[in-house]
Amino acid sequence: MDERVEHWISEHQALENGMSDQRLSLRVKQHLYSKKSQYQQVDVFDTWSYGRVLQLDGVFQTTEKDEFVYHEMISHVPLFTHPDPKKYLIIGGGDGGVAREALKHPLEKAYLVDIDEDVVTVSKKYLRSIGSEFDNPRLSVHCTDGIKFMQERKHEFDVISIDSTDPIGPAVGLFSNEFYQDVFNALTPDGVMACQSESPFYYPEFIRDLHKRLRTIFPIVTLYTGVIPTYPGAFWSWTLASKKYQPADVAMDSIAKRMKAGNMKNMKWFSPEIYKASFVLPPFVQQLIRA
Amino acid sequence: MDERVEHWISEHQALENGMSDQRLSLRVKQHLYSKKSQYQQVDVFDTWSYGRVLQLDGVFQTTEKDEFVYHEMISHVPLFTHPDPKKYLIIGGGDGGVAREALKHPLEKAYLVDIDEDVVTVSKKYLRSIGSEFDNPRLSVHCTDGIKFMQERKHEFDVISIDSTDPIGPAVGLFSNEFYQDVFNALTPDGVMACQSESPFYYPEFIRDLHKRLRTIFPIVTLYTGVIPTYPGAFWSWTLASKKYQPADVAMDSIAKRMKAGNMKNMKWFSPEIYKASFVLPPFVQQLIRA
Repeated sequence: MDERVEHWISEHQALENGMSDQRLSLRVKQHLYSKKSQYQQVDVFDTWSYGRVLQLDGVFQTTEKDEFVYHEMISHVPLFTHPDPKKYLIIGGGDGGVAREALKHPLEKAYLVDIDEDVVTVSKKYLRSIGSEFDNPRLSVHCTDGIKFMQERKHEFDVISIDSTDPIGPAVGLFSNEFYQDVFNALTPDGVMACQSESPFYYPEFIRDLHKRLRTIFPIVTLYTGVIPTYPGAFWSWTLASKKYQPADVAMDSIAKRMKAGNMKNMKWFSPEIYKASFVLPPFVQQLIRA
Repeated sequence: MDERVEHWISEHQALENGMSDQRLSLRVKQHLYSKKSQYQQVDVFDTWSYGRVLQLDGVFQTTEKDEFVYHEMISHVPLFTHPDPKKYLIIGGGDGGVAREALKHPLEKAYLVDIDEDVVTVSKKYLRSIGSEFDNPRLSVHCTDGIKFMQERKHEFDVISIDSTDPIGPAVGLFSNEFYQDVFNALTPDGVMACQSESPFYYPEFIRDLHKRLRTIFPIVTLYTGVIPTYPGAFWSWTLASKKYQPADVAMDSIAKRMKAGNMKNMKWFSPEIYKASFVLPPFVQQLIRA
């Protein structure tokens, strides 16, 4: 085989102890894009097993093969927890995948706030099936600091999804108590937020701490899960924090009705049944978030 | 760092197309055991992130960190689908993990049939938390060919779990129609069987074909899932085939009662709620097994 065919990329997947004791490697067809942006190293690869892959600072962010799980779960779960969301905010999500899913809902307006314009540009060009809704007139894209953006908004959004990178490096501010208080303030009085919260296999103490902190701000805090093979631990969690609505009170019927009324299609992971099942936690995860 | 500290092991994880386009690598503390048995290359490593790891022919079989998911799901799901299992058979499972879980049930007798005695020996010595029940008087271990063993038994077992390696190489016979017919014959008239059936992300056509074939033998065939981070695709499936009992008819209450009556403890993945949730399939998996 020639050298091009045997090109591999690896992510050193750190555990909570900070050690890089494992790595996932994908064989590359073509290195499509590479640039050091103002904030991070941005790469797009075409791989044999996962299609096109976006890497930021050497960490797999999204792949064409498994992106649907993450994007459907971080958007539809909070959006269906709220009975009638009109204004929706995405922090991060510059690849456009969360926006693509959210815009299946009859929202009046969705805002996407990603600090790194290069991620948006590169996704429009190289990840077209993910960044497919950037021209949707209901979407407003802001390439600016999500922390500052959040501070300036009050009682405005029905639902907020925080699609951040890992809680190390540039995104660390998106996991602070101050930021979560700003999220609370930016939500309407019955608002709902969801954020990615890493793998219970690798970051149990992070999840435990996150829930403790969010419970000091939101009356309702809960965890739900899905599977993303290219993320460290694969068994992934998101945390939902809500001012009024309990996921346990959302009926599968009502989700099915809204899906039908909105002609929502092409969901490959999410369904009304999966909404319910995703909140069912194995005992080793349940004990992490016991109040 | 010295060379020992930087010792890594990798599994080249093949996709359905037969290409090895990705690999998972773990950093090794110590190589504890290595032997070419009569059937396969057997290795035990102590790793930094997953504890002790059993590899057969270079494929991760089980690790101390994530073994509980696989072993709980392949045993408790079929055992709780049957209302009162007395005789239980494990094909494969030489590491002892399935037996450890199954013996939490009030079985009269469990049989473990693994072709490779070296796997049993090595697990007793190096994987003691997994192979912890080999001395249980209710367990009968047979190091012999599971295919032949099955042919000789009729209407004997209430539940059978097939804990095989992948459907390539030595285990291929454990996925044949002839073997499944023998499994059907070895089960009591209301018997239940479960087998591991790979990842829907990587082996969708295998799952589709398996279900088509099993439906010609068993009246009830269904799929359930869990997550094993060290298996290719991580999102893992098992197939349950049953002569009489439908998992949908099993009440969570009745599982909880049996767990309490049997004083069943230390389950980290399985619960009555997880039993139900594990049969809820994302749409992309559901369409694979649509009859």
